Amino acid sequence: VHKFARNFITEWRRLKLPFENANVLIAVSGGADSAALALVLADLKQAKKLKLSFAIAHFNHNLRDAESDADEKFVKDLAEKIEFKFVSNIQNPKSKIRNQKGNLEQNARDSRYEFLFETAQKENALMVLTAHTVNDQAETFLLNLLRGSGLRGMGAMKSIRNLESENEDSAKPEILLVRPFLSWAKRSDTEDFVREKGIDFRQDSMNRDEKFSRVKIRKKLIPLLREFNPKIVETLARTAFLLQDDLEEKSKVRNLKSESLSVKELQNLSQTKLYAELRNWLKDMRGSLRQIGLQHIQAVERLIVSRKSGRKIELPGGAAVIKKDGRLCFEKTKVEKSPTDN
Amino acid sequence: VHKFARNFITEWRRLKLPFENANVLIAVSGGADSAALALVLADLKQAKKLKLSFAIAHFNHNLRDAESDADEKFVKDLAEKIEFKFVSNIQNPKSKIRNQKGNLEQNARDSRYEFLFETAQKENALMVLTAHTVNDQAETFLLNLLRGSGLRGMGAMKSIRNLESENEDSAKPEILLVRPFLSWAKRSDTEDFVREKGIDFRQDSMNRDEKFSRVKIRKKLIPLLREFNPKIVETLARTAFLLQDDLEEKSKVRNLKSESLSVKELQNLSQTKLYAELRNWLKDMRGSLRQIGLQHIQAVERLIVSRKSGRKIELPGGAAVIKKDGRLCFEKTKVEKSPTDN
Repeated sequence: VHKFARNFITEWRRLKLPFENANVLIAVSGGADSAALALVLADLKQAKKLKLSFAIAHFNHNLRDAESDADEKFVKDLAEKIEFKFVSNIQNPKSKIRNQKGNLEQNARDSRYEFLFETAQKENALMVLTAHTVNDQAETFLLNLLRGSGLRGMGAMKSIRNLESENEDSAKPEILLVRPFLSWAKRSDTEDFVREKGIDFRQDSMNRDEKFSRVKIRKKLIPLLREFNPKIVETLARTAFLLQDDLEEKSKVRNLKSESLSVKELQNLSQTKLYAELRNWLKDMRGSLRQIGLQHIQAVERLIVSRKSGRKIELPGGAAVIKKDGRLCFEKTKVEKSPTDN
Repeated sequence: VHKFARNFITEWRRLKLPFENANVLIAVSGGADSAALALVLADLKQAKKLKLSFAIAHFNHNLRDAESDADEKFVKDLAEKIEFKFVSNIQNPKSKIRNQKGNLEQNARDSRYEFLFETAQKENALMVLTAHTVNDQAETFLLNLLRGSGLRGMGAMKSIRNLESENEDSAKPEILLVRPFLSWAKRSDTEDFVREKGIDFRQDSMNRDEKFSRVKIRKKLIPLLREFNPKIVETLARTAFLLQDDLEEKSKVRNLKSESLSVKELQNLSQTKLYAELRNWLKDMRGSLRQIGLQHIQAVERLIVSRKSGRKIELPGGAAVIKKDGRLCFEKTKVEKSPTDN
């Protein structure tokens, strides 16, 4: 197997992704990154390293544009060549680009993710793969840094997250969004791999338009930053992952300590802040705010104000909040899972 | 009072700095930032807002260079004009630039801080003020980001930290390094203020030499970043402070939860890591490692290995480590403060 495919499998293992018995949807635009993703998966399937069922999803951004149609034809031909099922939004006219007002990139992105989510559901896919590279991670980090979007924004993209529909419906199973290139493959790696396969990938003309911040970051800012540090792309991507780890560690540690809250500290909060704090705490402790209404928050508020110790507020789903020793404590009562909890 | 002086006092209050009865050393190079610092303090002293005793410290980088001598003369004249005591390293020939090998900027910086520390001690100063601005903070953030120096480096400079000598001598009192401009004053603010005072500040020729990364960041990178975000300097400085808060919060939370350590987790560590972990933990719990020797670490190690519960290791200074319920617990025994602890 090619070194690129070996690196890919190493990351697949690190991310604890399945090696068999799952449907996987691959998002392919036709650029080098996503063509490399389809091609490396085809290699690994043929080498029987991955015994998974793959389908390719292509989102055609402009239904009447010649370039977009040529992109679609390229991806369709690629899918045929590697014998992967092909799905595009042309066959699914509901997924058109909505709300043409506002930010063009953002609208296109929203429509694309909606299409991917719907297609993944139809295909019974466990996950959707996208071909974001280390370069995309560095660019996202910079975009968010320059926007001043705070530490969470600078954490940029995650290698795995839940792909959620706009109308969150908890009855439907979770679909994962997985970016198996994000932590190790550079754009030059994907280009080299696709070229070695003798495939002439597509160029997105939007990738040359500097009115888009991301393109200007790629074409002007990163070359200047490279004069300071030749490995700037790797450095920025690593920094983004450092921030992800940092925030994750902090939220873990915070959860550890927050099994009880100080009544005194809560009494010093304004009502708005108190309600927000209680909601966050109950969400952390219970996993969600399902079935928690204003009446429960108000009951806990009365518990805080009351001078008695040892009082208890029962919560839906088998839990309770108890006041003892000047602290609010969360208690999970072990109950049989009710049929509606599935 | 001038708006610049009002903003200065607001920050002085926020940093909880004293308004009277202290000696304060001001580091002045002769550039706009440090000239503004000396001038605003002179205004506030005259207006009796700050009843402090000020002295100016100037570090002459090159003892034979005409430009350096002109810088020194400018600062000496400024000190005379505002009636602040003047000290330079010319009067203190031991503080020459050491170790000319290696990084020129770093050597100059080390020598300057050593001079400031020694002068502050001689002057019985509670603190040394430097004139680092929001721009310096943004530049330091970028320098450290581009170097890949991790989250702590990206936290950049602190508004207050301890100024420590190279030969740390805990018997000597702490001297604070305070940067009262860092969180709010931009370089353009200091320039405007000095110009309004009719003072023609000095320009550092090193500030024009793009072979220094910091100058290149200032002259080339920040102007490009400003095309993405006109308030980029403020945005980057704020991000640095966000990181400082984040790291500080995390270390607080970690300290909260680490009053005990899991014996099982400690048993899985190599001896080197175990010793490092125990030293860090004891340092966090006791405030320092004073009087803790290898024999104490080894005693705690035996406690971990031993199958018995409830055993106790006494530590110098009135504390103990106890094993109970599979955890090592730190116990502070309340003792009278001994005279040597002062």
